[in-house]
Amino acid sequence: MYPSLQINPSRIWSNLMELAKIGEIEGGGVDRQALTQKEFEARELCIFWANQFGLSVSHDPVGNLFFLLQGSNPELPVVMSGSHIDTQPTGGKFDGAFGVLAGIEAVRAIIEAGVSPRRGIEIVAWMNEEGSRFAPGMMGSEAFSGIRTLENIEKITDQNGISVKEELKELQKRFPLIDKRLLGREVFCFVEAHIEQGPILERKACPVGVVTGIQGVRRMRVQVTGDEAHAGTTPYASRRDAIEDSARAIDRLYSEFSNEENTRFTVGRLIANPNVPSVIASNVLFSIDLRHPESKKLVQAERRARKIIAGAMNRCSHKIWCIAEADTVMFDERILQTIENVSKTLGIPSLRIFSGAGHDARQMAASCPTGMIFVPSRGGVSHNINEYTSKKDIVSGTNVLCNVLMQLANSTKLN
Amino acid sequence: MYPSLQINPSRIWSNLMELAKIGEIEGGGVDRQALTQKEFEARELCIFWANQFGLSVSHDPVGNLFFLLQGSNPELPVVMSGSHIDTQPTGGKFDGAFGVLAGIEAVRAIIEAGVSPRRGIEIVAWMNEEGSRFAPGMMGSEAFSGIRTLENIEKITDQNGISVKEELKELQKRFPLIDKRLLGREVFCFVEAHIEQGPILERKACPVGVVTGIQGVRRMRVQVTGDEAHAGTTPYASRRDAIEDSARAIDRLYSEFSNEENTRFTVGRLIANPNVPSVIASNVLFSIDLRHPESKKLVQAERRARKIIAGAMNRCSHKIWCIAEADTVMFDERILQTIENVSKTLGIPSLRIFSGAGHDARQMAASCPTGMIFVPSRGGVSHNINEYTSKKDIVSGTNVLCNVLMQLANSTKLN
Repeated sequence: MYPSLQINPSRIWSNLMELAKIGEIEGGGVDRQALTQKEFEARELCIFWANQFGLSVSHDPVGNLFFLLQGSNPELPVVMSGSHIDTQPTGGKFDGAFGVLAGIEAVRAIIEAGVSPRRGIEIVAWMNEEGSRFAPGMMGSEAFSGIRTLENIEKITDQNGISVKEELKELQKRFPLIDKRLLGREVFCFVEAHIEQGPILERKACPVGVVTGIQGVRRMRVQVTGDEAHAGTTPYASRRDAIEDSARAIDRLYSEFSNEENTRFTVGRLIANPNVPSVIASNVLFSIDLRHPESKKLVQAERRARKIIAGAMNRCSHKIWCIAEADTVMFDERILQTIENVSKTLGIPSLRIFSGAGHDARQMAASCPTGMIFVPSRGGVSHNINEYTSKKDIVSGTNVLCNVLMQLANSTKLN
Repeated sequence: MYPSLQINPSRIWSNLMELAKIGEIEGGGVDRQALTQKEFEARELCIFWANQFGLSVSHDPVGNLFFLLQGSNPELPVVMSGSHIDTQPTGGKFDGAFGVLAGIEAVRAIIEAGVSPRRGIEIVAWMNEEGSRFAPGMMGSEAFSGIRTLENIEKITDQNGISVKEELKELQKRFPLIDKRLLGREVFCFVEAHIEQGPILERKACPVGVVTGIQGVRRMRVQVTGDEAHAGTTPYASRRDAIEDSARAIDRLYSEFSNEENTRFTVGRLIANPNVPSVIASNVLFSIDLRHPESKKLVQAERRARKIIAGAMNRCSHKIWCIAEADTVMFDERILQTIENVSKTLGIPSLRIFSGAGHDARQMAASCPTGMIFVPSRGGVSHNINEYTSKKDIVSGTNVLCNVLMQLANSTKLN
């Protein structure tokens, strides 16, 4: 065992604060959605930092951004770590950014300590984790792991009709000199650091969560179709009002799921057409985000949701489809134990915790041993401008990550 | 009594079809919202027609467009007629356009018949009747009648933040040579021709409706405010979900009002924020359009709506405000009788009908004797691409309008 590595506490914190200025919104939040000019700027800043201490920078065809610290044996598959730098339109400073910057800081601390790992350590910023501009998210990690094809991803458009393909071309124009990599490769293991986005670590006053798995999710879309008609003249009996039937469906769905402790049900997006006050709406599209830790119960919940929606339609027709299904994933016990042991060695308390939120690590778990490290979120708040993690917890989490990566990079195999 | 005037049946129909090409949308509808480039084009076409037979064209400061046939005694207040050429985003070919083009055709028929009225006859295209781009509508007629100030109207912005003031400047740039008029003036009487937008005339196979009045309306806005939070992690008990509480409110409002024969309740617009699938919505703004023929019952309905919304809030806060209140208006009996007598003379059946929809004539009724002429709407359909009135009914309505305007323009006073 090597002596414990120490990261630079001021540097990780000031880097986080500097990155948060790109796409800054009122109240201290961040709007830096995938493949926007702001997200490109954020890439530029990360590349600038990585260049300062000589990491090799590369893009792959789906727009994932990699920073590699070469290992002493370049033949060996690398240890990979990272997260994402895109945010929700009203996101915070830490979601995603922490994982990428903690990875960069960890590698820098390793270099500055003058030690050299056997395996390469590669830090990644996955393209479009959030899925707010281009839905569904997790595009970069899904393409990398072979879960979705690049072709399928490139076709997806945002609300202005701009496709991922077009923006990937923009990305290439913006960074013409960066190495191009093929999509996907063998990875020894993957460890993602992230904020918890829930209240548990804060409540237990524990700085590090050893994430055991990620709950399953169904992302659905519901299209309700009626007829446009004059709001002032059309009698109720001749109406097919898409807002009326959608409101009934959404209200019943919330009533159904809100009392179940482990189910998470959310309608976060709703778009009505023509969306003018004096015209009965002919069309509503709304999203459903449905999650449950048990895959079997999630399947049942989806079935119930479909039935409730069908039952809520008065005179409108409807269509329901799933845009993303992910079953519950459990992480690799060997990675979990490595994180636990490192925390113990460093004298940093840790506890095992299950993730309600989805992360890129879910995709990586399908192709290599994977684990995650959580740090606390104040008040459990995330996807919100008030997202906050203390500097002390950021530093603890980054130190754990740094030592975990070093230990894994020196391992021949996982025990 | 002069001999009956006859309008040109092919010309009114082909003009309507030609105007409908400006802003044409798939399926035969029209999207020509107020003060857009398309609406400017429509003005251009109307001006072209009016110039062909020598009407004086003018704009007033709020963007109302006037076409004047001078009377033999220019000192006398004019007879005014007209409607609007703006449409809903998914509107039809007839709503508004019929009233303006019927007025232009009526004046042309009078000129071609070689007769000369004592009073001037002035045709108007009121600015922004629909209120879909800039809400609430009826801007032109309200400013003309002194119900709303120009200053108040100019401040209103569309969803892209563009103000009425800016677009009125654009209008002036586009038509620099057209005479400028002051806002408002004394008018002898006002008659608006319009499609019914309801099913009654069609059902009774009657080509002309003598409109007795317009039902009252409340246009309200409801703002529901919660907190953004992560859809996958935030437990139900800590959520303040604006979509959830709005859906509950809207569902209850529809349940309350849908069984009342004479109440018309519609939520036509709903905007959620941040409106992304994996974030709990912190904000919903929705519109309420509430109408009732009896002003007292309308006031009660508004009160009930406010109570229902308050009761439907779970953890969100809310705010309700009225953006437009109009009580039920009854039209001038003398104008109604003139329309009835003219119809009888022409051998065109008419029947008295009450309007569910609002029209610019409501505003004019506050400042001069006012009436309306309806023609049938197939299936009662309006604010919809399938809006349709037969050529035969268009011609009958225009002939009635033409003779009504001539008779009124020769009257010293209303009996």
